[in-house]
Amino acid sequence: MAANTFGEIFRVTTFGESHGPGIGLIIDGCPSGVKVDEIFIQSELERRKPGQSKIVTQRQEDEQFIIQSGIFEGTTTGTPISIFIPNNDQKPKDYSHLENIFRPSHADFTYDSKYGIRDYAGGGRSSARETAARVAAGAIAKMILREIGVRIIAFVSQVGHVKLEHYNPDNINHIEENIVRCPDPETANKMIDLIMQVKKEGDTIGGQITCIISGCPPGLGSPVFDKLHADLAKAMLGINAVKGFEYGSGFNCVSMRGSEHNDIFENDHGTIITQTNYSGGIQGGISNGMPINFNVAFKPVATIMSSQKTVDTEGNPTIAEGKGRHDPCVVPRAVPIVEAMAALVLVDHYLRQRTVRF
Amino acid sequence: MAANTFGEIFRVTTFGESHGPGIGLIIDGCPSGVKVDEIFIQSELERRKPGQSKIVTQRQEDEQFIIQSGIFEGTTTGTPISIFIPNNDQKPKDYSHLENIFRPSHADFTYDSKYGIRDYAGGGRSSARETAARVAAGAIAKMILREIGVRIIAFVSQVGHVKLEHYNPDNINHIEENIVRCPDPETANKMIDLIMQVKKEGDTIGGQITCIISGCPPGLGSPVFDKLHADLAKAMLGINAVKGFEYGSGFNCVSMRGSEHNDIFENDHGTIITQTNYSGGIQGGISNGMPINFNVAFKPVATIMSSQKTVDTEGNPTIAEGKGRHDPCVVPRAVPIVEAMAALVLVDHYLRQRTVRF
Amino acid sequence: MAANTFGEIFRVTTFGESHGPGIGLIIDGCPSGVKVDEIFIQSELERRKPGQSKIVTQRQEDEQFIIQSGIFEGTTTGTPISIFIPNNDQKPKDYSHLENIFRPSHADFTYDSKYGIRDYAGGGRSSARETAARVAAGAIAKMILREIGVRIIAFVSQVGHVKLEHYNPDNINHIEENIVRCPDPETANKMIDLIMQVKKEGDTIGGQITCIISGCPPGLGSPVFDKLHADLAKAMLGINAVKGFEYGSGFNCVSMRGSEHNDIFENDHGTIITQTNYSGGIQGGISNGMPINFNVAFKPVATIMSSQKTVDTEGNPTIAEGKGRHDPCVVPRAVPIVEAMAALVLVDHYLRQRTVRF
Amino acid sequence: MAANTFGEIFRVTTFGESHGPGIGLIIDGCPSGVKVDEIFIQSELERRKPGQSKIVTQRQEDEQFIIQSGIFEGTTTGTPISIFIPNNDQKPKDYSHLENIFRPSHADFTYDSKYGIRDYAGGGRSSARETAARVAAGAIAKMILREIGVRIIAFVSQVGHVKLEHYNPDNINHIEENIVRCPDPETANKMIDLIMQVKKEGDTIGGQITCIISGCPPGLGSPVFDKLHADLAKAMLGINAVKGFEYGSGFNCVSMRGSEHNDIFENDHGTIITQTNYSGGIQGGISNGMPINFNVAFKPVATIMSSQKTVDTEGNPTIAEGKGRHDPCVVPRAVPIVEAMAALVLVDHYLRQRTVRF
Repeated sequence: MAANTFGEIFRVTTFGESHGPGIGLIIDGCPSGVKVDEIFIQSELERRKPGQSKIVTQRQEDEQFIIQSGIFEGTTTGTPISIFIPNNDQKPKDYSHLENIFRPSHADFTYDSKYGIRDYAGGGRSSARETAARVAAGAIAKMILREIGVRIIAFVSQVGHVKLEHYNPDNINHIEENIVRCPDPETANKMIDLIMQVKKEGDTIGGQITCIISGCPPGLGSPVFDKLHADLAKAMLGINAVKGFEYGSGFNCVSMRGSEHNDIFENDHGTIITQTNYSGGIQGGISNGMPINFNVAFKPVATIMSSQKTVDTEGNPTIAEGKGRHDPCVVPRAVPIVEAMAALVLVDHYLRQRTVRF
Repeated sequence: MAANTFGEIFRVTTFGESHGPGIGLIIDGCPSGVKVDEIFIQSELERRKPGQSKIVTQRQEDEQFIIQSGIFEGTTTGTPISIFIPNNDQKPKDYSHLENIFRPSHADFTYDSKYGIRDYAGGGRSSARETAARVAAGAIAKMILREIGVRIIAFVSQVGHVKLEHYNPDNINHIEENIVRCPDPETANKMIDLIMQVKKEGDTIGGQITCIISGCPPGLGSPVFDKLHADLAKAMLGINAVKGFEYGSGFNCVSMRGSEHNDIFENDHGTIITQTNYSGGIQGGISNGMPINFNVAFKPVATIMSSQKTVDTEGNPTIAEGKGRHDPCVVPRAVPIVEAMAALVLVDHYLRQRTVRF
Repeated sequence: MAANTFGEIFRVTTFGESHGPGIGLIIDGCPSGVKVDEIFIQSELERRKPGQSKIVTQRQEDEQFIIQSGIFEGTTTGTPISIFIPNNDQKPKDYSHLENIFRPSHADFTYDSKYGIRDYAGGGRSSARETAARVAAGAIAKMILREIGVRIIAFVSQVGHVKLEHYNPDNINHIEENIVRCPDPETANKMIDLIMQVKKEGDTIGGQITCIISGCPPGLGSPVFDKLHADLAKAMLGINAVKGFEYGSGFNCVSMRGSEHNDIFENDHGTIITQTNYSGGIQGGISNGMPINFNVAFKPVATIMSSQKTVDTEGNPTIAEGKGRHDPCVVPRAVPIVEAMAALVLVDHYLRQRTVRF
Repeated sequence: MAANTFGEIFRVTTFGESHGPGIGLIIDGCPSGVKVDEIFIQSELERRKPGQSKIVTQRQEDEQFIIQSGIFEGTTTGTPISIFIPNNDQKPKDYSHLENIFRPSHADFTYDSKYGIRDYAGGGRSSARETAARVAAGAIAKMILREIGVRIIAFVSQVGHVKLEHYNPDNINHIEENIVRCPDPETANKMIDLIMQVKKEGDTIGGQITCIISGCPPGLGSPVFDKLHADLAKAMLGINAVKGFEYGSGFNCVSMRGSEHNDIFENDHGTIITQTNYSGGIQGGISNGMPINFNVAFKPVATIMSSQKTVDTEGNPTIAEGKGRHDPCVVPRAVPIVEAMAALVLVDHYLRQRTVRF
């Protein structure tokens, strides 16, 4: 209801503000018997971590996590898994300049409208810091998916006008080799240059992430309201700064004909596959065994280095000064978040599918 | 779980197959005291109804509905509202040609993969007939929203390459004046011509619907996972044939700078508004009082009039013959469905908001 | 939320008022592949039906049901199962005498307090007629449980002061042989005599039902909040007129010592059993393989044949006249309802258990 | 699903094992604007705390709690409230004697049956230590209820055969004056003597707690499945060691007549009340404004000081040695747990009621 929980069976509840003692999560419904690889959780958190390169925010966060329950001798027990990530960049900083101002395109005004009260320190609950909890939960989901052969890979496919024209699956291992997380090294360099330029100008820029899920067995997803792609869409739009989601043919389908868009089935040595994949691996809301692919659009970060006109909490005109450490472009650090949310959707539907047949 | 229920407080559960006795729904959680306008429900169903014009499927469905509970002397009582819509186009037709075939880009293969059994008559549960139940539920949601000043208007903004270049709010009343439901009469005619051409060719074509919600009070939507736009995205992607969702600046945000994308707040005679609306009426997942706007991409209908290669349920190559009555383009009839799903999301978050402040 | 849905995976939503067109239900989450025995559903409805004997209400209800969806060629498909039971005792009767009165120990006053409006015809939604929907849903749950060896048997163990002193499992087949549904024929006769006497006096009397579930595999039930017995308790207290629930040793445990109450484990040819069963087949909220047993207390029906003082909806003193057809004692007809609700709990936890281990 | 969450709107999720780093909880859905009294939370935890008197377990737990999120300058913000209670009695003790044994009437066997793995240290998740989290959450619920005039008082009404014959509301302030928490000082002394005697014998004994809720407004509770008493029953049966629940007339109703059991309405200076309260403050599942009262039966603690026959995890006969620190009777410490769970039910239904009328 209050919407800090995600999932039906594999249920993740997150908590924590940007400048409180820390953030964290509970996973309720993780099956027993999963071997937990803490080093992997750490490595996933590192991929999201601020300060990891010159093109991201220079805030320092350590992302040390503490597992507080649910794991016994390295294995999940079926009881709730609780993970806590202390905030160690909790400078005794003065945030009082944010107390009475509504920053443009931030959540200050809407939080006040909703709750009548707002933790203004560093954005409080609306801070992207909250996504660290999702990445930790997603790491556990990935451990399960790995065992059943599902692999989730996301990468940056566009920054501003710099676009990855064609995704070559052979380049998949290049993604983590560059700081922008684009599989094509040349395009990656252009993206990095653009972000550095934007940063120098004190501005920010949007971007797009593409995600590809391979090895998903046919049958996952629920028809009608919880179609697999509907749950993926909700998962992605639930990430800060996301403005759009498309899967398979996406918005291009608008100008296509049925005769070209239909994916022809064929029998590939006993496995039913499709010749094309405009369906994006999902038909009728249910996975068909082909790769699932989708794009996610991220807006430019609202915090910029220029002064902007705005109003204060009384509605009087005022100026929002440009300061603070922030990302000039969120997509490099959002890659593991997209993967984590996709993993949560997949593992949930994988467990749901166990209840479907008698 | 099995996902035939939508909403948290205003909960709609639908049932029914294309060729059974009928389809229907229960609304659990509709507040007591709502005056129910049955004529309005009927008029909404008529907007979705097959056979309404030359550009839609020529199937005949009467869409007579029966309210079975929850309403006493014209007013909701707070108990579950049940509505049944009999299938009266239940011809004793032979569907056995669909029993053993997986039609391209239909849900035949995935339903079989999921359930191991499939009601193959007319698509069974995967038929778009199911959306009539959503429209009926949405009509009741709209009655509530109307009382609190929220208005939801959807229209066709693209068919194939024919695109409504600019939406003029003055044209809002033209939408229902043409059979394709595009607010600009000239563009509407081009769309109709295109659909008629595609139909003549036995083919189908995609399209896009735009939805605009005005009068939404600030404060609706839950931060983190149930952001208002995340729930709208899920609602839209849950409609058959939808491949993409974007709100506010949408995918265009990818190539924008923060300095241009930020919506500057100002005080308009005591109301805080924004000068631009790239945020699409939602910031941090919560409505800010500006119009909410989003686009939804619909793929071309999978049923076409040509023969297509495919496989049977044993995996052997076979041919799917082109037959049956179908829509050459779904968007004209999908307009009320988009509105209905948006209404369900809005009314649910409106009721949720009542629990948020002490 | 509005609480007309029961269950987490096997979800039953009921609707309908006593004097509307009918009552009904949707089961969402019933697995595909269950063979549906319609004759069994009918026979379960007959066990709950008014007019079945001299000791129950003489109202006539036919309990013909219509399956509207979810079943294809006699087998569940995994899509929502909808069942409708028309009200055929819908006499054009005048209920206006109930419009402005709060009958003692009925739900008139509380419905008005909650909703500000009340369907006063025959009790509306608060009528026990609603339980017919539960019995129909329970019949489908029982079909699943039967396949996995779980058997649920309920019987009347007390009416007024007439108590079944000892339950002899050998008498299990006698339960349905007498109209009060008590396994001991002699006690049954005393109960029948008492009910007839009470009826003659225009009064009503309370009773107790005992339920025994055998064949339940170990491992069902969720620790902490959804303990198996906690869900059974909620299911039972959700039945009209129920005032108490106890399982295993029940309220007798209050005066027992740990040394006598502990159930000693032993190995019975490879199966771990307990020598005694004060635990009632559930330990730590999870079934242990021993028979599950519990008692349910039903109050005397509130409708009696005498005039009673009360107030009208304005708070003025008035008289509630004794009229209408009603049960002098609910327990004979409540036996199948207890079984149905137990079956819903068991089948839900059976499906939940499938998601627990990796 | 996995059932470590309680409530629909005011949702409490708990985590933690007896011998891990600690236990804790998240409240999601607590309204914004609640003043949080940390001293009260502490005092409630003290009431549940081991070692508080000679009649309870002599384990030492400090019950220091840390609020990690959701509260800003002493007031709830509407975001998730996280509370952590470190385990500081985490002796590097050897629990290996519990690894391969199924203790009688503990949850060892059933946890193994369910999960295939078990954290055997001190009972792991099945330890009553988990209830500290409930008490902390309940303290926050009580703060809300206090503001709306609802008061929840529980007390011990029976220990073994020593029974509080009549509850005198004038004695309500005596409850916390004695270590057994019985409002009648004389009966309290008898209970204490009995518990001391049982303790000396190395045995344990059962007990009963009565709870009275005053000031509850009419209209709370949902008809059909979430009747207010059904949710209270589930809440109580979800507490470790509880075997039974009854409200109002309870099991006594079985031998009562309708003519005596019906509660006659009357107008008390503008408030509609009932002359008697066999309904226990709830009619048709909805509160009627009269005091809500119920009894809860607790079994004798399973841990006793004698050796008991049992089986090991291989099914071989073995002996469970009597050792460890435990409560000879749980009811004195369970009083605040009963209150906490009742508070969670009430606050949840209070918030739910806000969504019911248009």
